[in-house]
Amino acid sequence: MPNIRFEPLGKTIGIEVDGETVLQTASRVGIPIESVCGGRGKCGRCLVQVRSGLAEVTPDDRAHISAADLEKGLRLACRLVVNSDLVVEISEEYAKAEQVILEKAVGEIRVDPLVRAFEIMIEKPTLANPSSDHLRLRMAIERALSANAFRPNVPLSVLVKLPRLLGNGGRLNVVLREDEVLELDSREIIPYGVAIDVGSTTVVAYLMDLRTGEELSVESELNPQIRYGDDVVSRITYAMSNATGTSVLQKLIIDCLNDLVERCCSASHVPIQDVFEVMAVGNTAMHHFMFGLESRSLALAPYNPVTARELSFKSTDTGLKIAKEGYHTSLPNVAGFVGADHVAVLLAANVLDMDEPRLIIDIGTNGELSVADRNGIASASVAAGPAFEGANLRCGMRGTSGAIDHVQISEDVDVTFTTINESVPRGLCGSGVIDLVAEMYLSGVLDRTGRIRRELGHPRVKVIDGEACFIVATESESGSGRPVMISQNDVTQIQYAKAAMYAGAEILMEKMHVDQFDLKEILLAGAFGNYASPNSARTIGLFPEVPLQHIVGIGNAAGSGAKMSLVSRAARETAKRIAKRVQYVELAAMPEFEEKFYAAMYFPHSDESKFPEVNTSLKKLARATL
Amino acid sequence: MPNIRFEPLGKTIGIEVDGETVLQTASRVGIPIESVCGGRGKCGRCLVQVRSGLAEVTPDDRAHISAADLEKGLRLACRLVVNSDLVVEISEEYAKAEQVILEKAVGEIRVDPLVRAFEIMIEKPTLANPSSDHLRLRMAIERALSANAFRPNVPLSVLVKLPRLLGNGGRLNVVLREDEVLELDSREIIPYGVAIDVGSTTVVAYLMDLRTGEELSVESELNPQIRYGDDVVSRITYAMSNATGTSVLQKLIIDCLNDLVERCCSASHVPIQDVFEVMAVGNTAMHHFMFGLESRSLALAPYNPVTARELSFKSTDTGLKIAKEGYHTSLPNVAGFVGADHVAVLLAANVLDMDEPRLIIDIGTNGELSVADRNGIASASVAAGPAFEGANLRCGMRGTSGAIDHVQISEDVDVTFTTINESVPRGLCGSGVIDLVAEMYLSGVLDRTGRIRRELGHPRVKVIDGEACFIVATESESGSGRPVMISQNDVTQIQYAKAAMYAGAEILMEKMHVDQFDLKEILLAGAFGNYASPNSARTIGLFPEVPLQHIVGIGNAAGSGAKMSLVSRAARETAKRIAKRVQYVELAAMPEFEEKFYAAMYFPHSDESKFPEVNTSLKKLARATL
Repeated sequence: MPNIRFEPLGKTIGIEVDGETVLQTASRVGIPIESVCGGRGKCGRCLVQVRSGLAEVTPDDRAHISAADLEKGLRLACRLVVNSDLVVEISEEYAKAEQVILEKAVGEIRVDPLVRAFEIMIEKPTLANPSSDHLRLRMAIERALSANAFRPNVPLSVLVKLPRLLGNGGRLNVVLREDEVLELDSREIIPYGVAIDVGSTTVVAYLMDLRTGEELSVESELNPQIRYGDDVVSRITYAMSNATGTSVLQKLIIDCLNDLVERCCSASHVPIQDVFEVMAVGNTAMHHFMFGLESRSLALAPYNPVTARELSFKSTDTGLKIAKEGYHTSLPNVAGFVGADHVAVLLAANVLDMDEPRLIIDIGTNGELSVADRNGIASASVAAGPAFEGANLRCGMRGTSGAIDHVQISEDVDVTFTTINESVPRGLCGSGVIDLVAEMYLSGVLDRTGRIRRELGHPRVKVIDGEACFIVATESESGSGRPVMISQNDVTQIQYAKAAMYAGAEILMEKMHVDQFDLKEILLAGAFGNYASPNSARTIGLFPEVPLQHIVGIGNAAGSGAKMSLVSRAARETAKRIAKRVQYVELAAMPEFEEKFYAAMYFPHSDESKFPEVNTSLKKLARATL
Repeated sequence: MPNIRFEPLGKTIGIEVDGETVLQTASRVGIPIESVCGGRGKCGRCLVQVRSGLAEVTPDDRAHISAADLEKGLRLACRLVVNSDLVVEISEEYAKAEQVILEKAVGEIRVDPLVRAFEIMIEKPTLANPSSDHLRLRMAIERALSANAFRPNVPLSVLVKLPRLLGNGGRLNVVLREDEVLELDSREIIPYGVAIDVGSTTVVAYLMDLRTGEELSVESELNPQIRYGDDVVSRITYAMSNATGTSVLQKLIIDCLNDLVERCCSASHVPIQDVFEVMAVGNTAMHHFMFGLESRSLALAPYNPVTARELSFKSTDTGLKIAKEGYHTSLPNVAGFVGADHVAVLLAANVLDMDEPRLIIDIGTNGELSVADRNGIASASVAAGPAFEGANLRCGMRGTSGAIDHVQISEDVDVTFTTINESVPRGLCGSGVIDLVAEMYLSGVLDRTGRIRRELGHPRVKVIDGEACFIVATESESGSGRPVMISQNDVTQIQYAKAAMYAGAEILMEKMHVDQFDLKEILLAGAFGNYASPNSARTIGLFPEVPLQHIVGIGNAAGSGAKMSLVSRAARETAKRIAKRVQYVELAAMPEFEEKFYAAMYFPHSDESKFPEVNTSLKKLARATL
């Protein structure tokens, strides 16, 4: 079998399977190559440069790569079958770029965790009272808890330790989770937990001291499942079309969680075996992958999940490497596309205490929306996220070094922008795209239908590959030697996404009998809420018009909700009540969704021919607050 | 490393550890060599004949083997270190002899098991009601049970199967154990359970249909731990003195249970994965070995067990190979030497319904005694068993082919006997020993102190190795070419054992304020109760004097109790109530035990000088009923 050498990493990998592609080889050994479509030759992202060896040109290569670049040896990794020894160069930037992600989560946490540790005093057995070790343990726990009929559940792995530890009585330290004895030792044990927000793109882990509720360290990683597609649907497609797909995706995310737990523990000098619970929340697909559940039903009508109930398994059941008797838990899901992470958001947003109506929006790779007030909660999901995260766009990229994150366009179409880490501009991340589209609209480059007005003859508007494009950073400004631009099709992608969000919000508000003028606040969760300009988001009509001061970023609320659930039984119970209270609205099943969706394609959010004065006034308002 | 070849098996085994003995090698690979003392050079049972190779003579060899036999190459396997290649011959009889054991257990059983299977109807999910698979399962179970708020606990291994099975609704079959879903399938599932009596010597397994309570098959095996000693104390000593001892003993018994379950299933054409519970009862030591618990505390004052509570673990925790989510359970223990098996005996004896006083005796390798009436239950244990099972006696053997099982001695000391399977006599099993001692006493060969009356000059009384012996079967009658005899020391062993039983019963009766004349019945459990002559047992004073018709054999009551618990929740609850109700009496802690014990050394059971008329009358009574 041939070998393949990846430069500049200098790694040589042997091919294992006839017909394996470069992308498959890279995925197998964890070498990062960007892929959005999951290796289906559709996204054109997985470019590698062939340095030596045979590399046929496929039709998909021709569709995505210019003749000049083909000549230079550029190929799609997903279409490049390794038939003989190869040397390829991958984009080092992709692997090395540090993600700017949210690591601070908020939320008031009353500490009352399921897992607790305390000291007990074991009595010595006597001939007159030869009580079993088990019974003496039970009595010691009862004394410590001042409980009368507490029957601890002792797992076999703890039971076998009793003779050694309890022999002649004395002081011991016990870790309980509800009625189960998770650990017993003569040393003092501080129980820890790890709360994890399992995002489709980024996984963030928080190490918590379960006695104090204190956050000790935070670590994050790219979700390694990305190699099977940036978006949820690509990964589900992968899982459905490969017999071992679900277990491959499960192993990837479990390895990632183990790695994060280990890094958190190492950073805070905490023994991993003292981590007794991992509370991991993700959207329903991430949740299903994590527990090894088939995700097929999430992709096919009626989009029902395998389970929506809060789960609690022994860590050994899922492969988490924490305390031997530790737990891997999750909050309840609501529906196929409203998952435990949104329940965590609603928990952190304190949704059950909302008397006046609020709209809660979590835009990650997927978008979830809820409208809540004293009468209840209605939630929906829209497949809106990828565009807002920079994916699927000509020059889209994640929020890493060199991403254009903020843009202004003056009335005479002068463009100014900032980039992450002040690097040379390489592409557009989510907040940059939203600014850009808003500014293009406000400056008149886009009309209200979203068309780039080529007829203006502006020098930044060019026709590239037969498509109108707006140049944000010129060739000379950009790091790659290529201009950073947005195309007509990119704008349309954003319109689809924002129209879906807007129409979804409209339907939820109707369901809850809430008018947009009744909205007390719009709460924005996730990285989007922190980085995107609320003004730009409002200008493009991502959500209903409310005064800017009523648009509130609530940070990584999914992480906050996970942390709250980890350190507070009350919060966990509240999360269950929230999940039950949520009325899930399947937008695909609503006949009015389509009409509202197409109307919301317009800027800012309605067909101006129907509501001319609203749009005009908003345009003025947006300019005024800039 | 040298090899060792075992004849007549023809097995050649490589030595793994420097200094390994022949007994250790044999144990390691499962070749059966009898050993009573656990390989400590004390019992002289583990004889092998060296056919070729170097075999030094050790002091222990000299203590147990005659000079002529040493010359022939006989050695103790436990003292024979393998320094060079060896060929040894083992006793094939030991391995091949079929045990006569009790396989029929009794007891009225009302069928209401923890594990039950039934059909459910799963609804199809719709866009209007896209319920999770988990929720549709729950609702289907609720409908089937007519229960309103039944929240089934679904293990991960079942949860992952839901999408495949529940996809479009339809009929399924579910197996529940309390609230846990153990299995789910489209095929019909009949749930089975296996009840096991884990005796120190013999392990008996009963395959039960959990729908009907029907017993489908019975299989039994020698307890393979026997290679580490016939008696419980030898095995505990082995476990205490070897770092891996406990896990070696656990593996042996778990392998044995797996083998029995497999054989039961195979005999009845039942799939092993449809066995959802194994209820295994044994004495406290067997119980501890089975669950891998240290047995050390059982051997040392205050003799407290690691646990006395009823246990219930996943079969995977202990290594049982049944249904993936099946359970390995046991009844509660009472104390260090009154185990779950005695609780099962008391359950089968229906002890909670006893108004009038009864004495319940289970003589296996250990002896357990209980006195029960409307006021309660008092239980004790005596290390009395081995002698009654033929162990530790000069010509003792288990109840296998060729064992003398019944003996009569006429007034003129003519001896007649029967053997198991009518084979040529090879030794004395428990029932034979009891008959023999009773008959020797009644015929005047023994005086009331247990002394063999050499002064009578009877031709069957001989002095061998400086010790008075009574010849039961002469050289010409016996199969081995050696006579079958009982020695003075053997008689003393029996006296120790019966005196302990009698003194124990006396103390329990005092504790319960029960006079021997109040005893309504004496219930004899186990093989002893079926095979030993109640008359002989009473004659030697194994238990108090009651009319013969009040001595009732109740069969393998431990097995019956295990079966009852397996198929009936009520029985399992009753077993817990029994274990709580039992007042455990630690005989070693009773100052009066010693005095009563020495008094009971006399035949039949009291110092005749104190109670001459009782003994005389009993002697007459025994003769009259013969």
